[in-house]
Amino acid sequence: MGDAKTVGILGGMGPAATVDLMQRIVAATPASDDSDHVRMLVDNNPKVPSRLKALIEKTGPSPAPVLIAMAQQLAAQGADFLAMPCNTAHHFYAELEAAVDVPFLNILELVATHISREQPNAKRVGLLASSALSQIQLYEPSLHARGMEVCYPMPAQQSALMALILAIKANAGDLVGYAALQNCADALEHDGVDCLVIACTELSVVAQHLHTDLPSYDAADLLAKEVVLRAAGKTAP
Amino acid sequence: MGDAKTVGILGGMGPAATVDLMQRIVAATPASDDSDHVRMLVDNNPKVPSRLKALIEKTGPSPAPVLIAMAQQLAAQGADFLAMPCNTAHHFYAELEAAVDVPFLNILELVATHISREQPNAKRVGLLASSALSQIQLYEPSLHARGMEVCYPMPAQQSALMALILAIKANAGDLVGYAALQNCADALEHDGVDCLVIACTELSVVAQHLHTDLPSYDAADLLAKEVVLRAAGKTAP
Repeated sequence: MGDAKTVGILGGMGPAATVDLMQRIVAATPASDDSDHVRMLVDNNPKVPSRLKALIEKTGPSPAPVLIAMAQQLAAQGADFLAMPCNTAHHFYAELEAAVDVPFLNILELVATHISREQPNAKRVGLLASSALSQIQLYEPSLHARGMEVCYPMPAQQSALMALILAIKANAGDLVGYAALQNCADALEHDGVDCLVIACTELSVVAQHLHTDLPSYDAADLLAKEVVLRAAGKTAP
Repeated sequence: MGDAKTVGILGGMGPAATVDLMQRIVAATPASDDSDHVRMLVDNNPKVPSRLKALIEKTGPSPAPVLIAMAQQLAAQGADFLAMPCNTAHHFYAELEAAVDVPFLNILELVATHISREQPNAKRVGLLASSALSQIQLYEPSLHARGMEVCYPMPAQQSALMALILAIKANAGDLVGYAALQNCADALEHDGVDCLVIACTELSVVAQHLHTDLPSYDAADLLAKEVVLRAAGKTAP
Protein backbone atom coordinates (compact mmCIF):
# COMPACT_ATOMS: atom_id res chain seq x y z
CA MET A 1 0.00 0.00 0.00
CA GLY A 2 1.53 3.30 -1.09
CA ASP A 3 0.56 6.92 -0.76
CA ALA A 4 -3.05 8.01 -1.18
CA LYS A 5 -3.80 9.11 -4.72
CA THR A 6 -6.31 11.59 -6.10
CA VAL A 7 -8.83 10.54 -8.74
CA GLY A 8 -10.01 12.93 -11.43
CA ILE A 9 -13.57 12.28 -12.62
CA LEU A 10 -14.80 13.28 -16.07
CA GLY A 11 -18.47 13.67 -15.17
CA GLY A 12 -21.79 15.06 -16.27
CA MET A 13 -22.70 12.19 -18.62
CA GLY A 14 -25.14 12.38 -16.97
CA PRO A 15 -24.95 14.24 -13.67
CA ALA A 16 -26.96 11.64 -11.73
CA ALA A 17 -24.54 8.96 -12.91
CA THR A 18 -21.59 11.04 -11.68
CA VAL A 19 -23.17 11.49 -8.26
CA ASP A 20 -23.91 7.75 -8.22
CA LEU A 21 -20.25 6.88 -8.93
CA MET A 22 -19.06 9.23 -6.18
CA GLN A 23 -21.56 7.70 -3.77
CA ARG A 24 -20.25 4.22 -4.63
CA ILE A 25 -16.67 5.39 -4.08
CA VAL A 26 -17.53 6.85 -0.66
CA ALA A 27 -19.42 3.70 0.35
CA ALA A 28 -16.64 1.36 -0.84
CA THR A 29 -13.91 3.18 1.10
CA PRO A 30 -12.78 1.71 4.41
CA ALA A 31 -12.98 4.87 6.53
CA SER A 32 -13.00 5.81 10.18
CA ASP A 33 -13.11 9.56 9.49
CA ASP A 34 -13.15 12.12 6.67
CA SER A 35 -9.40 11.87 6.15
CA ASP A 36 -9.58 8.18 5.14
CA HIS A 37 -11.74 8.98 2.12
CA VAL A 38 -10.61 9.38 -1.48
CA ARG A 39 -9.83 12.85 -2.77
CA MET A 40 -11.87 13.38 -5.91
CA LEU A 41 -11.47 16.25 -8.35
CA VAL A 42 -14.67 16.27 -10.35
CA ASP A 43 -15.69 18.11 -13.47
CA ASN A 44 -19.40 17.45 -13.64
CA ASN A 45 -19.85 18.95 -17.09
CA PRO A 46 -23.32 18.41 -18.53
CA LYS A 47 -22.30 20.41 -21.60
CA VAL A 48 -20.16 17.62 -23.03
CA PRO A 49 -21.59 17.24 -26.55
CA SER A 50 -24.17 14.45 -26.74
CA ARG A 51 -22.63 11.06 -27.40
CA LEU A 52 -25.91 9.95 -28.96
CA LYS A 53 -26.02 12.84 -31.42
CA ALA A 54 -22.39 12.33 -32.40
CA LEU A 55 -22.41 8.54 -32.72
CA ILE A 56 -25.92 7.52 -33.70
CA GLU A 57 -27.87 10.45 -35.05
CA LYS A 58 -24.71 11.84 -36.69
CA THR A 59 -26.04 15.34 -36.15
CA GLY A 60 -23.65 16.63 -33.50
CA PRO A 61 -19.94 17.25 -32.97
CA SER A 62 -17.62 14.71 -31.41
CA PRO A 63 -17.38 15.06 -27.64
CA ALA A 64 -13.68 14.12 -27.80
CA PRO A 65 -12.17 17.63 -27.78
CA VAL A 66 -14.19 18.68 -24.71
CA LEU A 67 -13.38 15.42 -22.94
CA ILE A 68 -9.67 15.82 -23.72
CA ALA A 69 -9.70 19.37 -22.30
CA MET A 70 -11.44 18.10 -19.15
CA ALA A 71 -8.95 15.24 -18.74
CA GLN A 72 -5.96 17.53 -19.18
CA GLN A 73 -7.33 20.10 -16.74
CA LEU A 74 -8.03 17.45 -14.09
CA ALA A 75 -4.49 16.10 -14.47
CA ALA A 76 -3.07 19.63 -14.26
CA GLN A 77 -5.02 20.21 -11.04
CA GLY A 78 -3.41 17.19 -9.44
CA ALA A 79 -5.40 14.11 -10.40
CA ASP A 80 -3.09 11.08 -10.25
CA PHE A 81 -5.41 8.99 -12.39
CA LEU A 82 -8.70 9.46 -14.22
CA ALA A 83 -12.08 7.76 -14.40
CA MET A 84 -15.13 8.48 -16.57
CA PRO A 85 -18.59 7.35 -15.41
CA CYS A 86 -20.10 6.93 -18.89
CA ASN A 87 -19.84 3.69 -20.82
CA THR A 88 -20.70 5.18 -24.22
CA ALA A 89 -18.02 7.88 -23.93
CA HIS A 90 -15.45 5.08 -23.77
CA HIS A 91 -15.82 4.98 -27.54
CA PHE A 92 -13.25 7.80 -27.38
CA TYR A 93 -11.08 6.07 -24.80
CA ALA A 94 -7.96 5.65 -26.97
CA GLU A 95 -7.91 9.35 -27.86
CA LEU A 96 -8.43 10.43 -24.26
CA GLU A 97 -5.90 8.04 -22.80
CA ALA A 98 -3.30 9.22 -25.32
CA ALA A 99 -3.90 12.88 -24.46
CA VAL A 100 -2.85 12.70 -20.80
CA ASP A 101 0.21 11.57 -18.89
CA VAL A 102 -1.70 9.94 -16.04
CA PRO A 103 -3.41 6.52 -16.07
CA PHE A 104 -7.00 6.51 -17.35
CA LEU A 105 -9.17 3.65 -16.07
CA ASN A 106 -10.93 1.71 -18.83
CA ILE A 107 -14.41 0.61 -17.78
CA LEU A 108 -14.66 -1.87 -20.69
CA GLU A 109 -11.51 -3.72 -19.70
CA LEU A 110 -12.48 -3.64 -16.02
CA VAL A 111 -15.82 -5.31 -16.77
CA ALA A 112 -14.38 -7.90 -19.16
CA THR A 113 -11.54 -8.80 -16.79
CA HIS A 114 -13.90 -9.09 -13.87
CA ILE A 115 -16.35 -11.39 -15.66
CA SER A 116 -13.63 -13.66 -16.99
CA ARG A 117 -12.28 -14.01 -13.47
CA GLU A 118 -15.66 -14.54 -11.78
CA GLN A 119 -17.17 -16.74 -14.49
CA PRO A 120 -14.36 -18.38 -16.48
CA ASN A 121 -16.89 -20.42 -18.46
CA ALA A 122 -19.19 -17.57 -19.43
CA LYS A 123 -19.75 -17.38 -23.18
CA ARG A 124 -22.71 -15.08 -23.66
CA VAL A 125 -22.93 -11.71 -21.93
CA GLY A 126 -26.20 -9.75 -21.94
CA LEU A 127 -25.79 -5.98 -22.05
CA LEU A 128 -28.24 -3.57 -20.41
CA ALA A 129 -27.12 -0.35 -22.00
CA SER A 130 -27.74 2.57 -24.30
CA SER A 131 -28.90 1.79 -27.82
CA ALA A 132 -25.62 3.29 -28.98
CA LEU A 133 -23.61 0.36 -27.70
CA SER A 134 -24.68 -2.24 -30.24
CA GLN A 135 -24.12 0.20 -33.08
CA ILE A 136 -20.62 1.17 -32.01
CA GLN A 137 -19.81 -2.37 -30.80
CA LEU A 138 -18.33 -0.87 -27.69
CA TYR A 139 -17.87 -3.95 -25.53
CA GLU A 140 -17.12 -6.43 -28.32
CA PRO A 141 -13.31 -6.05 -28.46
CA SER A 142 -12.82 -6.49 -24.69
CA LEU A 143 -15.25 -9.42 -24.43
CA HIS A 144 -14.25 -11.16 -27.67
CA ALA A 145 -10.62 -11.04 -26.53
CA ARG A 146 -11.69 -13.20 -23.59
CA GLY A 147 -13.82 -15.64 -25.56
CA MET A 148 -17.19 -14.08 -24.84
CA GLU A 149 -19.88 -12.76 -27.15
CA VAL A 150 -22.29 -9.91 -26.57
CA CYS A 151 -26.08 -10.25 -26.54
CA TYR A 152 -28.52 -7.35 -26.81
CA PRO A 153 -32.25 -7.02 -26.12
CA MET A 154 -34.64 -7.08 -29.10
CA PRO A 155 -35.27 -3.66 -30.70
CA ALA A 156 -38.66 -2.90 -29.10
CA GLN A 157 -37.41 -3.66 -25.61
CA GLN A 158 -34.17 -1.83 -26.28
CA SER A 159 -36.14 1.26 -27.34
CA ALA A 160 -38.06 1.24 -24.07
CA LEU A 161 -34.78 0.89 -22.17
CA MET A 162 -33.37 3.88 -24.04
CA ALA A 163 -36.45 5.91 -23.11
CA LEU A 164 -35.78 5.09 -19.47
CA ILE A 165 -32.13 6.21 -19.78
CA LEU A 166 -33.24 9.54 -21.24
CA ALA A 167 -35.84 9.92 -18.49
CA ILE A 168 -33.19 9.44 -15.80
CA LYS A 169 -31.15 12.25 -17.37
CA ALA A 170 -34.28 14.43 -17.05
CA ASN A 171 -34.87 13.49 -13.35
CA ALA A 172 -37.94 11.51 -14.46
CA GLY A 173 -36.92 7.88 -13.94
CA ASP A 174 -39.51 7.39 -11.21
CA LEU A 175 -42.20 8.76 -13.47
CA VAL A 176 -41.38 6.35 -16.30
CA GLY A 177 -40.80 3.36 -14.03
CA TYR A 178 -38.32 0.55 -14.31
CA ALA A 179 -40.24 -2.12 -16.20
CA ALA A 180 -38.10 -1.61 -19.30
CA LEU A 181 -34.98 -2.58 -17.37
CA GLN A 182 -36.62 -5.66 -15.92
CA ASN A 183 -38.11 -6.69 -19.27
CA CYS A 184 -34.76 -6.49 -21.03
CA ALA A 185 -33.09 -8.50 -18.29
CA ASP A 186 -35.83 -11.15 -18.36
CA ALA A 187 -35.63 -11.44 -22.15
CA LEU A 188 -31.86 -11.83 -22.09
CA GLU A 189 -32.20 -14.48 -19.39
CA HIS A 190 -34.79 -16.29 -21.51
CA ASP A 191 -32.34 -16.03 -24.39
CA GLY A 192 -29.84 -18.00 -22.32
CA VAL A 193 -27.11 -15.50 -21.49
CA ASP A 194 -24.63 -16.49 -18.79
CA CYS A 195 -24.65 -13.12 -17.07
CA LEU A 196 -25.86 -9.53 -17.30
CA VAL A 197 -23.86 -6.33 -17.38
CA ILE A 198 -25.35 -2.97 -16.43
CA ALA A 199 -23.32 -1.07 -18.97
CA CYS A 200 -24.87 2.36 -18.75
CA THR A 201 -24.13 4.56 -15.75
CA GLU A 202 -27.67 5.98 -15.80
CA LEU A 203 -29.00 2.43 -15.34
CA SER A 204 -26.55 1.95 -12.47
CA VAL A 205 -28.40 4.77 -10.70
CA VAL A 206 -31.56 2.63 -10.66
CA ALA A 207 -29.97 -0.83 -10.53
CA GLN A 208 -31.65 -1.57 -7.21
CA HIS A 209 -34.93 -1.94 -9.15
CA LEU A 210 -33.59 -4.91 -11.13
CA HIS A 211 -34.28 -8.40 -9.83
CA THR A 212 -32.59 -11.35 -11.50
CA ASP A 213 -31.18 -14.73 -10.62
CA LEU A 214 -28.39 -14.36 -13.15
CA PRO A 215 -24.95 -13.19 -12.09
CA SER A 216 -24.99 -9.49 -12.85
CA TYR A 217 -22.16 -7.01 -12.96
CA ASP A 218 -22.52 -3.26 -12.66
CA ALA A 219 -19.90 -1.36 -14.65
CA ALA A 220 -20.18 1.72 -12.40
CA ASP A 221 -19.73 -0.38 -9.30
CA LEU A 222 -16.63 -2.09 -10.70
CA LEU A 223 -15.24 1.32 -11.66
CA ALA A 224 -15.89 2.68 -8.15
CA LYS A 225 -14.12 -0.28 -6.52
CA GLU A 226 -11.15 0.11 -8.85
CA VAL A 227 -10.97 3.82 -7.97
CA VAL A 228 -10.85 2.96 -4.25
CA LEU A 229 -8.04 0.41 -4.81
CA ARG A 230 -5.99 2.74 -6.98
CA ALA A 231 -6.50 5.69 -4.65
CA ALA A 232 -5.16 3.60 -1.77
CA GLY A 233 -2.01 3.02 -3.80
CA LYS A 234 -2.90 -0.61 -4.36
CA THR A 235 -2.30 -2.10 -7.77
CA ALA A 236 -5.43 -3.49 -9.29
CA PRO A 237 -5.61 -7.23 -8.60
CA MET B 1 -32.56 34.70 -16.77
CA GLY B 2 -28.94 35.07 -17.89
CA ASP B 3 -26.25 32.69 -19.01
CA ALA B 4 -25.71 29.40 -17.25
CA LYS B 5 -23.06 29.66 -14.55
CA THR B 6 -20.66 27.10 -13.13
CA VAL B 7 -20.57 26.39 -9.39
CA GLY B 8 -17.35 25.47 -7.61
CA ILE B 9 -17.85 23.19 -4.61
CA LEU B 10 -15.41 23.05 -1.70
CA GLY B 11 -16.14 19.49 -0.64
CA GLY B 12 -14.93 16.57 1.41
CA MET B 13 -16.26 17.82 4.75
CA GLY B 14 -17.34 15.06 4.69
CA PRO B 15 -17.50 13.26 1.37
CA ALA B 16 -21.01 11.87 1.91
CA ALA B 17 -22.25 15.41 2.56
CA THR B 18 -20.66 16.59 -0.69
CA VAL B 19 -22.32 13.80 -2.66
CA ASP B 20 -25.60 14.64 -0.92
CA LEU B 21 -25.38 18.31 -1.94
CA MET B 22 -24.64 17.35 -5.54
CA GLN B 23 -27.60 14.96 -5.51
CA ARG B 24 -29.84 17.74 -4.23
CA ILE B 25 -28.58 20.10 -6.95
CA VAL B 26 -29.26 17.51 -9.68
CA ALA B 27 -32.74 16.79 -8.28
CA ALA B 28 -33.63 20.50 -7.94
CA THR B 29 -32.67 21.33 -11.54
CA PRO B 30 -35.45 21.61 -14.12
CA ALA B 31 -33.93 19.40 -16.82
CA SER B 32 -35.05 17.65 -19.96
CA ASP B 33 -31.55 16.32 -20.80
CA ASP B 34 -27.94 16.34 -19.56
CA SER B 35 -27.30 19.78 -21.02
CA ASP B 36 -29.90 21.45 -18.77
CA HIS B 37 -28.00 20.48 -15.63
CA VAL B 38 -25.60 22.62 -13.61
CA ARG B 39 -21.89 22.40 -14.32
CA MET B 40 -20.14 21.66 -11.05
CA LEU B 41 -16.41 21.79 -10.47
CA VAL B 42 -15.86 19.84 -7.28
CA ASP B 43 -12.86 19.42 -5.04
CA ASN B 44 -13.93 16.64 -2.72
CA ASN B 45 -10.94 16.97 -0.42
CA PRO B 46 -11.20 14.81 2.68
CA LYS B 47 -7.76 16.02 3.74
CA VAL B 48 -9.01 19.45 4.79
CA PRO B 49 -7.72 19.72 8.37
CA SER B 50 -10.38 18.73 10.90
CA ARG B 51 -12.63 21.60 11.88
CA LEU B 52 -13.28 19.88 15.21
CA LYS B 53 -9.59 19.56 16.06
CA ALA B 54 -8.92 23.17 15.13
CA LEU B 55 -11.93 24.77 16.80
CA ILE B 56 -12.84 22.57 19.77
CA GLU B 57 -9.98 20.29 20.70
CA LYS B 58 -7.47 23.02 19.80
CA THR B 59 -5.03 20.31 18.76
CA GLY B 60 -4.93 20.82 14.99
CA PRO B 61 -4.11 23.50 12.44
CA SER B 62 -6.67 25.86 10.98
CA PRO B 63 -8.29 24.52 7.83
CA ALA B 64 -8.41 28.05 6.41
CA PRO B 65 -5.22 27.93 4.27
CA VAL B 66 -6.27 24.68 2.57
CA LEU B 67 -9.81 25.98 2.03
CA ILE B 68 -8.47 29.22 0.54
CA ALA B 69 -6.24 27.28 -1.85
CA MET B 70 -9.22 25.13 -2.91
CA ALA B 71 -11.43 28.19 -3.44
CA GLN B 72 -8.80 29.96 -5.51
CA GLN B 73 -8.15 26.88 -7.63
CA LEU B 74 -11.87 26.34 -8.30
CA ALA B 75 -12.22 30.00 -9.34
CA ALA B 76 -9.14 29.72 -11.56
CA GLN B 77 -10.65 26.64 -13.25
CA GLY B 78 -13.74 28.58 -14.16
CA ALA B 79 -16.15 28.49 -11.24
CA ASP B 80 -18.40 31.57 -11.42
CA PHE B 81 -19.40 31.24 -7.78
CA LEU B 82 -18.59 28.99 -4.84
CA ALA B 83 -20.47 26.87 -2.32
CA MET B 84 -19.23 24.86 0.67
CA PRO B 85 -21.34 21.96 2.00
CA CYS B 86 -20.12 22.16 5.59
CA ASN B 87 -21.78 24.39 8.17
CA THR B 88 -18.89 24.35 10.67
CA ALA B 89 -16.36 25.42 8.05
CA HIS B 90 -18.37 28.62 7.62
CA HIS B 91 -16.54 29.76 10.76
CA PHE B 92 -13.85 30.74 8.23
CA TYR B 93 -16.30 32.28 5.77
CA ALA B 94 -15.03 35.88 5.99
CA GLU B 95 -11.45 34.80 5.24
CA LEU B 96 -12.51 32.59 2.34
CA GLU B 97 -14.86 35.11 0.83
CA ALA B 98 -12.14 37.78 0.96
CA ALA B 99 -9.62 35.50 -0.77
CA VAL B 100 -11.52 35.09 -4.05
CA ASP B 101 -12.96 37.40 -6.68
CA VAL B 102 -16.12 35.35 -7.26
CA PRO B 103 -19.26 35.28 -5.06
CA PHE B 104 -19.16 32.73 -2.22
CA LEU B 105 -22.57 31.57 -0.99
CA ASN B 106 -23.06 31.90 2.77
CA ILE B 107 -25.08 29.01 4.19
CA LEU B 108 -25.68 30.87 7.48
CA GLU B 109 -27.23 33.88 5.77
CA LEU B 110 -29.25 31.65 3.45
CA VAL B 111 -30.79 29.79 6.36
CA ALA B 112 -31.48 32.91 8.43
CA THR B 113 -33.02 34.77 5.48
CA HIS B 114 -35.17 31.80 4.58
CA ILE B 115 -36.55 31.32 8.10
CA SER B 116 -37.32 35.00 8.57
CA ARG B 117 -39.25 34.96 5.28
CA GLU B 118 -41.11 31.68 5.95
CA GLN B 119 -41.79 32.30 9.64
CA PRO B 120 -41.67 36.04 10.32
CA ASN B 121 -42.76 35.46 13.92
CA ALA B 122 -40.23 32.78 14.77
CA LYS B 123 -38.21 33.65 17.87
CA ARG B 124 -36.49 30.43 18.93
CA VAL B 125 -34.61 28.28 16.42
CA GLY B 126 -33.49 24.76 17.39
CA LEU B 127 -30.20 23.64 15.84
CA LEU B 128 -29.44 20.04 14.97
CA ALA B 129 -25.73 20.30 14.39
CA SER B 130 -22.17 19.48 15.36
CA SER B 131 -21.17 20.13 18.96
CA ALA B 132 -18.79 22.74 17.57
CA LEU B 133 -21.59 25.11 16.65
CA SER B 134 -22.61 26.18 20.16
CA GLN B 135 -18.99 26.75 21.11
CA ILE B 136 -18.18 28.90 18.10
CA GLN B 137 -21.64 30.54 18.11
CA LEU B 138 -21.79 30.01 14.37
CA TYR B 139 -25.42 30.81 13.66
CA GLU B 140 -25.92 33.47 16.34
CA PRO B 141 -24.91 36.57 14.31
CA SER B 142 -27.17 35.75 11.34
CA LEU B 143 -30.15 34.75 13.50
CA HIS B 144 -29.75 37.50 16.13
CA ALA B 145 -29.67 40.07 13.33
CA ARG B 146 -33.19 38.92 12.44
CA GLY B 147 -34.55 38.83 15.96
CA MET B 148 -34.17 35.11 16.57
CA GLU B 149 -32.28 33.22 19.25
CA VAL B 150 -30.59 29.83 18.98
CA CYS B 151 -31.50 26.77 21.06
CA TYR B 152 -29.30 23.68 21.44
CA PRO B 153 -29.99 20.15 22.71
CA MET B 154 -28.87 19.29 26.25
CA PRO B 155 -25.28 18.00 26.53
CA ALA B 156 -26.02 14.26 26.77
CA GLN B 157 -28.28 14.30 23.72
CA GLN B 158 -25.87 16.56 21.88
CA SER B 159 -23.04 14.07 22.54
CA ALA B 160 -25.08 11.26 21.05
CA LEU B 161 -25.83 13.43 18.01
CA MET B 162 -22.12 14.14 17.59
CA ALA B 163 -21.40 10.41 17.71
CA LEU B 164 -23.88 9.94 14.87
CA ILE B 165 -22.20 12.67 12.81
CA LEU B 166 -18.82 10.99 13.23
CA ALA B 167 -20.34 7.61 12.34
CA ILE B 168 -21.72 9.02 9.09
CA LYS B 169 -18.23 10.21 8.18
CA ALA B 170 -17.08 6.61 8.73
CA ASN B 171 -19.88 5.11 6.58
CA ALA B 172 -21.46 3.71 9.74
CA GLY B 173 -24.60 5.82 10.18
CA ASP B 174 -26.86 2.80 9.62
CA LEU B 175 -24.98 0.85 12.23
CA VAL B 176 -25.38 3.55 14.88
CA GLY B 177 -28.99 4.35 13.98
CA TYR B 178 -30.80 7.66 13.94
CA ALA B 179 -32.36 7.80 17.39
CA ALA B 180 -29.97 10.56 18.49
CA LEU B 181 -31.28 12.83 15.75
CA GLN B 182 -34.90 12.14 16.65
CA ASN B 183 -34.25 12.54 20.39
CA CYS B 184 -32.61 15.94 19.91
CA ALA B 185 -35.46 17.10 17.70
CA ASP B 186 -38.08 15.88 20.17
CA ALA B 187 -36.33 17.57 23.09
CA LEU B 188 -36.07 20.87 21.22
CA GLU B 189 -39.76 20.63 20.34
CA HIS B 190 -40.59 19.94 23.98
CA ASP B 191 -38.47 22.99 24.84
CA GLY B 192 -40.81 25.09 22.69
CA VAL B 193 -38.69 26.10 19.71
CA ASP B 194 -40.53 27.56 16.72
CA CYS B 195 -38.61 25.57 14.13
CA LEU B 196 -35.68 23.22 13.58
CA VAL B 197 -32.61 23.67 11.40
CA ILE B 198 -30.55 20.74 10.17
CA ALA B 199 -27.30 22.65 10.36
CA CYS B 200 -24.78 19.90 9.69
CA THR B 201 -24.38 18.54 6.18
CA GLU B 202 -23.75 15.02 7.53
CA LEU B 203 -27.17 15.14 9.20
CA SER B 204 -28.67 16.31 5.90
CA VAL B 205 -27.53 12.98 4.44
CA VAL B 206 -29.86 11.16 6.86
CA ALA B 207 -32.57 13.82 7.24
CA GLN B 208 -35.20 11.45 5.85
CA HIS B 209 -35.03 9.57 9.17
CA LEU B 210 -36.27 12.61 11.11
CA HIS B 211 -40.00 12.92 11.78
CA THR B 212 -41.31 16.12 13.30
CA ASP B 213 -44.38 18.30 13.17
CA LEU B 214 -42.28 21.46 13.53
CA PRO B 215 -41.31 23.49 10.50
CA SER B 216 -37.81 22.25 9.72
CA TYR B 217 -35.22 23.71 7.39
CA ASP B 218 -32.30 21.81 5.93
CA ALA B 219 -29.24 24.01 5.38
CA ALA B 220 -27.88 21.73 2.65
CA ASP B 221 -31.19 21.77 0.82
CA LEU B 222 -31.39 25.56 0.93
CA LEU B 223 -27.81 25.74 -0.34
CA ALA B 224 -28.60 23.34 -3.21
CA LYS B 225 -31.64 25.38 -4.27
CA GLU B 226 -29.63 28.59 -4.17
CA VAL B 227 -26.95 26.96 -6.35
CA VAL B 228 -29.59 26.00 -8.93
CA LEU B 229 -30.99 29.56 -9.00
CA ARG B 230 -27.56 31.18 -9.28
CA ALA B 231 -26.39 28.72 -11.93
CA ALA B 232 -29.42 29.58 -14.03
CA GLY B 233 -28.34 33.22 -13.89
CA LYS B 234 -31.26 34.12 -11.64
CA THR B 235 -30.63 36.49 -8.78
CA ALA B 236 -31.50 34.97 -5.48
CA PRO B 237 -35.03 36.01 -4.47
